Amino acid sequence: MSNLEPAAQPLPQVSHRGRSAAPIASSNAEGEEVPEFDSFGIIGPRGPPPLREFLDIWDVNMLRRPDEVNTPQHSTHLYASDHLIVRRGQEFQLKVTFDRPYKPADDQFAVEFIIGDSVFLDDDDEREECVLNEVGVIYHGAYDDMSERPWNFGQFDYGVLDACLFIMDKAAMPITNRGDAIKVARKASAMLNSHDDDGVLVGNWSGDYTYGVAPTSWTGSTEILLNYSSSKTPVCYAQCWVYAAVFNTFLRCLGIPARVVTNFYSAHDNDGNLKTDVILDENGRIDKHRTKDSIWNYHCWNECYMSRPDLPQGFGGWQAVDATPQETSDGMYRCGPASVQAIKHGQICFPFDAPFVFAEVNSDVVFYSRNPRDGTLEPVKVNSSHVGRMVVTKVPGQDARRDITDQYKFPEGSPEERTVLEKAEEYGCHREKATPPEADVELDMPLMEVRVGDDFELKLEFNNTSDQARTVDVYVSGNVVYYTGVTSSEFLFKTPRVILDPKKAEKLVMEVRSQDYMRKLVEQANLHFIATGKVKETGQIITSMRVVTLHTPKLSVEVSGLAKVSEEMMVTVEFTNPFKFNLEDVYVRVEGPGVMPPKYKHYSLITAGSSLTWTEGFTPRRAGPTKLMASLDCAALRQVYGQAQLTVKP
Amino acid sequence: MSNLEPAAQPLPQVSHRGRSAAPIASSNAEGEEVPEFDSFGIIGPRGPPPLREFLDIWDVNMLRRPDEVNTPQHSTHLYASDHLIVRRGQEFQLKVTFDRPYKPADDQFAVEFIIGDSVFLDDDDEREECVLNEVGVIYHGAYDDMSERPWNFGQFDYGVLDACLFIMDKAAMPITNRGDAIKVARKASAMLNSHDDDGVLVGNWSGDYTYGVAPTSWTGSTEILLNYSSSKTPVCYAQCWVYAAVFNTFLRCLGIPARVVTNFYSAHDNDGNLKTDVILDENGRIDKHRTKDSIWNYHCWNECYMSRPDLPQGFGGWQAVDATPQETSDGMYRCGPASVQAIKHGQICFPFDAPFVFAEVNSDVVFYSRNPRDGTLEPVKVNSSHVGRMVVTKVPGQDARRDITDQYKFPEGSPEERTVLEKAEEYGCHREKATPPEADVELDMPLMEVRVGDDFELKLEFNNTSDQARTVDVYVSGNVVYYTGVTSSEFLFKTPRVILDPKKAEKLVMEVRSQDYMRKLVEQANLHFIATGKVKETGQIITSMRVVTLHTPKLSVEVSGLAKVSEEMMVTVEFTNPFKFNLEDVYVRVEGPGVMPPKYKHYSLITAGSSLTWTEGFTPRRAGPTKLMASLDCAALRQVYGQAQLTVKP
Repeated sequence: MSNLEPAAQPLPQVSHRGRSAAPIASSNAEGEEVPEFDSFGIIGPRGPPPLREFLDIWDVNMLRRPDEVNTPQHSTHLYASDHLIVRRGQEFQLKVTFDRPYKPADDQFAVEFIIGDSVFLDDDDEREECVLNEVGVIYHGAYDDMSERPWNFGQFDYGVLDACLFIMDKAAMPITNRGDAIKVARKASAMLNSHDDDGVLVGNWSGDYTYGVAPTSWTGSTEILLNYSSSKTPVCYAQCWVYAAVFNTFLRCLGIPARVVTNFYSAHDNDGNLKTDVILDENGRIDKHRTKDSIWNYHCWNECYMSRPDLPQGFGGWQAVDATPQETSDGMYRCGPASVQAIKHGQICFPFDAPFVFAEVNSDVVFYSRNPRDGTLEPVKVNSSHVGRMVVTKVPGQDARRDITDQYKFPEGSPEERTVLEKAEEYGCHREKATPPEADVELDMPLMEVRVGDDFELKLEFNNTSDQARTVDVYVSGNVVYYTGVTSSEFLFKTPRVILDPKKAEKLVMEVRSQDYMRKLVEQANLHFIATGKVKETGQIITSMRVVTLHTPKLSVEVSGLAKVSEEMMVTVEFTNPFKFNLEDVYVRVEGPGVMPPKYKHYSLITAGSSLTWTEGFTPRRAGPTKLMASLDCAALRQVYGQAQLTVKP
Repeated sequence: MSNLEPAAQPLPQVSHRGRSAAPIASSNAEGEEVPEFDSFGIIGPRGPPPLREFLDIWDVNMLRRPDEVNTPQHSTHLYASDHLIVRRGQEFQLKVTFDRPYKPADDQFAVEFIIGDSVFLDDDDEREECVLNEVGVIYHGAYDDMSERPWNFGQFDYGVLDACLFIMDKAAMPITNRGDAIKVARKASAMLNSHDDDGVLVGNWSGDYTYGVAPTSWTGSTEILLNYSSSKTPVCYAQCWVYAAVFNTFLRCLGIPARVVTNFYSAHDNDGNLKTDVILDENGRIDKHRTKDSIWNYHCWNECYMSRPDLPQGFGGWQAVDATPQETSDGMYRCGPASVQAIKHGQICFPFDAPFVFAEVNSDVVFYSRNPRDGTLEPVKVNSSHVGRMVVTKVPGQDARRDITDQYKFPEGSPEERTVLEKAEEYGCHREKATPPEADVELDMPLMEVRVGDDFELKLEFNNTSDQARTVDVYVSGNVVYYTGVTSSEFLFKTPRVILDPKKAEKLVMEVRSQDYMRKLVEQANLHFIATGKVKETGQIITSMRVVTLHTPKLSVEVSGLAKVSEEMMVTVEFTNPFKFNLEDVYVRVEGPGVMPPKYKHYSLITAGSSLTWTEGFTPRRAGPTKLMASLDCAALRQVYGQAQLTVKP
């Protein structure tokens, strides 16, 4: 007797019989019973002919056309859909036609609804932005040298609402749970990534995107969601902002206020541990083999706005949710909703996944010196202000960014900050308690703004605050890194000795030439400089880190023609290859909410110094301000973006 | 350009490059780097020949044999394994052989360990039971007519520890998380069922077990775990106690104290809602089409013992975990750990899944009368003591059961109970607030103990507490139900009218004949009687419910021979078919921890009145008290168990 099926075969389908009285409805597409509606006509045939005349229904009109009463009043006129879509907490009308005049005294009829949910965002501007705006901006780069990606959330595009409902069907999410915004957000954070559940997007950080679209190439969510719902197969590929952007579309599409946030220097893969460990050898040089943690240059997630009846009062409002699969978060490929207010106050005992988000913005970077003989690690420097350096999102109604770090943390060094960290430690977040003495030599590498392909100067600024001379042996390492902080290759390594007079500052300048790094560039073109060293006289360790996000050339996007609904216009995308090398296998994408569906072109070669010009017609389908957004992407040059604003007249 | 793979093909494997500095180790089988161990010999070749003589290691002896020091001191002598297995928080020894005498003044060496965890159970008897005992008892049936299943947890059987480690490997659980008992228990609650993750067991409540082993047929966990780890495919089939029993093996095997508990009348599939709805029509008869919730006659889950550093103080200790897939629990096929203390106090805002467990023991049964014209529901009776009627587990060191209901709830009707329910409501558990007036006619159906195949009498006891006459039209429905409370078929339906004098009691007796129900029996042979009715004079609704768990015949198990390690003995399993019908396709299983691996025999036919005798040899492999446990199972007769105790001499 075998109780095992061969591995390659699917397991036999087991019916729900004996397990539940009826199958749990997890799709409106198949469930005839939800919502329940008994036509009164049915009562007739069961017994003898009725003595009085039953009221029969001829027609139910949901008044769903844009010119009828419901759609404008519910701000759902933007949805390209054949169904009536209404929002919570607000009246709507429907028109029932009976077979004869309705007699209130004799006739009774009932309409049954299934409702739920509580996600009302009180601020008009925020609600307008976080529910209705299809045009987004996602920040990246470095906190002191920020770049932005335009994004078409496209939550009202034709097919997008159906795709979002399909995602919940695919997750077999019971219909009865779909009124619960907490459950919807949590489930979707799992479903947006392909792990576990064949969800929407396949993550890929490898640099090899041969079998799909490079994460940097997408300009909006529509193409991804429509691909997913038609193919029913995960879409390739995503990195954090793609997950966050598509998740944002999902949430806004379902009327849950949502925004994309970017956290600069995000501690990752450490699962509630408040330390990121950097291991130095006995001379103060980084031990790359033993330094396994990485700090992402930035990480994007979402916030959605909702009440939290499952928590004590005061933890409603913005909730962090994250669809990017986190390898070590409890083995679970989903995250949140975690109350931002709970994170700020260190109340990380409340669901869901608050310790993980807390660590992303609050971890310390701890430098350890490793004794080579017995392997013991001694903490030599703790940097508590590096991680979670800044959290930003877009300002409602404007193309500007807003620093929301204070919603996640109290000010660095404040008494409240200390209290919060102690509270979090009570809930199992481990910190390094040692406070190694501050070195009396300071080291800083100031900000540089550098374009891809430029030669530039790396400056190291030393300051001897002691009244004695100091000699420092410095290790300067320049690395090409992924935006996840993971090193791809080292292109610069120098070991200067610096001699500092008492109370004196000293500057060290190193030439970095494009030929040193260009061949090794990956992806998002980040250079990571780390300088560490040991003060000879005191044995103290000094460290400094600098991320240089190389600026990419811009894509020119220009529109021409009369911006009016149903009138054809033209968009021209232009790009000149500014490099001394050719660009191969180049994809250019362009799209615009309400005006142009996603389109792309493939150019097999753009030779050094040459240009491309792509002109494409489009026809706005609705009035109002919008944007056309374009990207250019190839293996040698990524995240080249451009956009053009226009206001369409009715 | 296509960014989609055909649906049938696996997605391209994406490397970790760019995502993490090194792949996250999720199996010791593949990870060479964890634990880290640098042989000191390596230092030599890197520079000039050392001036002094380095210490080299010739051998590391883990002293793991049963007669060596570690294994007896750590109570791990029972594990059939080739590796040293030690427990937390206790010294152990290892023997390092160097190439020359060790000189403490000159030589330094280091041993590095990766440790973690905090699951220490202070009570000796409980620890002995919940970590070391392989022999278990799982309670089922009804709270006032309980039956038991013997179970071989087999956590020390050869291959079981490896199977448990394989389960975590299969879940890709990072090695670094495996020191965290909370994460291990949570992950395992997902991995024990096949949903989402191709976990250990496929649930089946349909009654059709053609493609696997009937849940009622298993006698222990070993066969299931070894099948799973060798085939790497989910094992067919399980119901709640099988999930709980195998989960228990997993936890005990990893040294996490654990026990199986049974909750009688367990509210299910209602996801934190504190109501189970029964819909009656206008005459007081159950509307089966609209009554969708069910109350399981019983439900088994696990408790594991651990500290909860992630929660405020006071919520450590026993934690409820449940591996049975709950269709509507957040769409998630796992549950817990939920602090039992938090459930008792209504503090269900703490992770994980406390509202779900809270509802299982605290829901009200609400009877609604449905107005047939407009579909409105009016609550007519609230029964708040039916659900979570009793929670039991085995007494440590004895074959007896212990009522642990008071660990989950304050006494029914106490002020503490009211406070707790109010607290839970604050966290979003919805209750029916209406308090419909108590009817002045009481209805009760007293307990009956009935064997499968017996004719018996169903008694309805009415009591008119008013000083007026009462007329009651009663609907009595007798149903064959699954243990999940789901109705299979109705075999009795009567509508007597009862007339009661003022202040008088009345008894109504109904004959139930075996031929009425035998043909319709399913599975666990439960009959469910529900009597509802309307008092003519007052319109009040009266209700009563009675579950009759039909007693099955016993299996005789007898051992003979000298019970001594390595001496062969015999076990004889005997069964006589007491029915007037044949039993077909019968499986008999027998096994015993430390004495006999799982064995089974198939009998294609046991004719009415005939007997089977199966004698099998076995050789005890270790000393101490143990049991041989046997089951007999076929479609027409399930859950026939027998056991024999024996004490093996060294």
